[in-house]
Amino acid sequence: MSFWKSLFNSQPTASATTTSSSLGSQVERDNGSESQIIFSKEKDIDVYELEELCDAVGWSRRPIRKVKKAIQHSFLVISMWEQRGAYRRLIGFSRATSDHAFNATIWDVVVHPEFQGRGLGKELMRQMIKELRSEDISNITLFADPHVVDFYRQLGFRPDPEGIKGMFWYPNSR
Amino acid sequence: MSFWKSLFNSQPTASATTTSSSLGSQVERDNGSESQIIFSKEKDIDVYELEELCDAVGWSRRPIRKVKKAIQHSFLVISMWEQRGAYRRLIGFSRATSDHAFNATIWDVVVHPEFQGRGLGKELMRQMIKELRSEDISNITLFADPHVVDFYRQLGFRPDPEGIKGMFWYPNSR
Ligand SMILES: CC(C)(COP(=O)(O)OP(=O)(O)OC[C@H]1O[C@@H](n2cnc3c(N)ncnc32)[C@H](O)[C@@H]1OP(=O)(O)O)[C@@H](O)C(=O)NCCC(=O)NCCS
Ligand SMILES: CC(C)(COP(=O)(O)OP(=O)(O)OC[C@H]1O[C@@H](n2cnc3c(N)ncnc32)[C@H](O)[C@@H]1OP(=O)(O)O)[C@@H](O)C(=O)NCCC(=O)NCCS
Repeated sequence: MSFWKSLFNSQPTASATTTSSSLGSQVERDNGSESQIIFSKEKDIDVYELEELCDAVGWSRRPIRKVKKAIQHSFLVISMWEQRGAYRRLIGFSRATSDHAFNATIWDVVVHPEFQGRGLGKELMRQMIKELRSEDISNITLFADPHVVDFYRQLGFRPDPEGIKGMFWYPNSR
Repeated sequence: MSFWKSLFNSQPTASATTTSSSLGSQVERDNGSESQIIFSKEKDIDVYELEELCDAVGWSRRPIRKVKKAIQHSFLVISMWEQRGAYRRLIGFSRATSDHAFNATIWDVVVHPEFQGRGLGKELMRQMIKELRSEDISNITLFADPHVVDFYRQLGFRPDPEGIKGMFWYPNSR
């Protein structure tokens, strides 16, 4: 069990942010100063802050206008924030496209390097799955880079079930 | 080259349906009676007719209400019709979910068994790719059943590029 999780479990009554889009929060004590981890479904995200987060894990920059459009047309967006007093910092993100009925596909799963390895990625994914399930989506899918296949496997995702293959179209191949 | 394709090429000026959502049409002569193959982007599809088509390839029935919702929330829907005089019959279908910016995922690709093997599935997929490209979608993806991986490969799709794995979530695994 991670450091973060044990603190969450020992402080179940920690003050929670209660905006309509809030998904819960955790309290963490680090060097004596108190910080909360907050999840939000709010789509109104500062895309510059998001691109900074993606930059921190080495993803290439994308046009801001397109990032905005993609978020707006995602079925579900969950962001993860560290709150310290009045200061709030974006530390994780994930979104899913969907037909609102049968299928959802999860994209852009990211946790800031400083916050990795504490169980937060797992918690972010659990929130995604919970929300999609609550919307009656039966088929939750994603495309995993080779180094994160085991991360998703731990969460209940299976690669190539019944031989189904993820495929990508290449412009120059035809 | 298939029978259908050769007739398309020899009759390039064949009367084409010109509704705003029409994508083109082909003329085919079969036993002396004239028929046209028409592609449409119209989302207002008779879902009972669609479920009949899916039934014909052995797919299990789905709740009509959810099928309607899925079509409405798909980014792109292309249907394929055989027109004979005043009679129009749904013979193919495909749709894609998307974030309208970066990614699209193609679902429910189907051609009626009586019309398979004539190049129509290929043409339907080409129309899908063309439309998604024209909307500036750079990442076109799908999940292929094992028996159709080669069908998609022919169209320029690659399985597991750079080791990226298609994954599906299973409720009972966690
Ligand atoms: C992948 C990522 C989201 C994981 O977030 P995280 O907060 O570090 O993950 P967690 O701490 O919740 O890890 C949960 C479990 O997965 C394991 N795990 C974490 N990253 C892993 C990886 N890359 N491969 C395999 N297992 C991994 C952890 O060991 C942990 O296991 P445990 O519960 O047995 O201790 C994060 O590392 C990241 O943002 N990476 C860069 C971006 C990226 O590659 N995203 C995926 C693109 S498809
Ligand atoms: C898969 C499907 C859409 C193909 O449609 P189609 O109209 O029969 O395909 P086409 O005639 O355009 O075939 C184009 C090419 O793909 C090949 N092909 C067709 N079906 C194939 C298959 N199942 N596996 C491998 N190659 C296939 C054809 O031989 C043809 O090759 P050629 O150009 O060298 O002659 C159709 O067979 C179908 O609806 N199947 C049932 C539903 C299904 O399985 N859908 C996919 C779910 S992931």
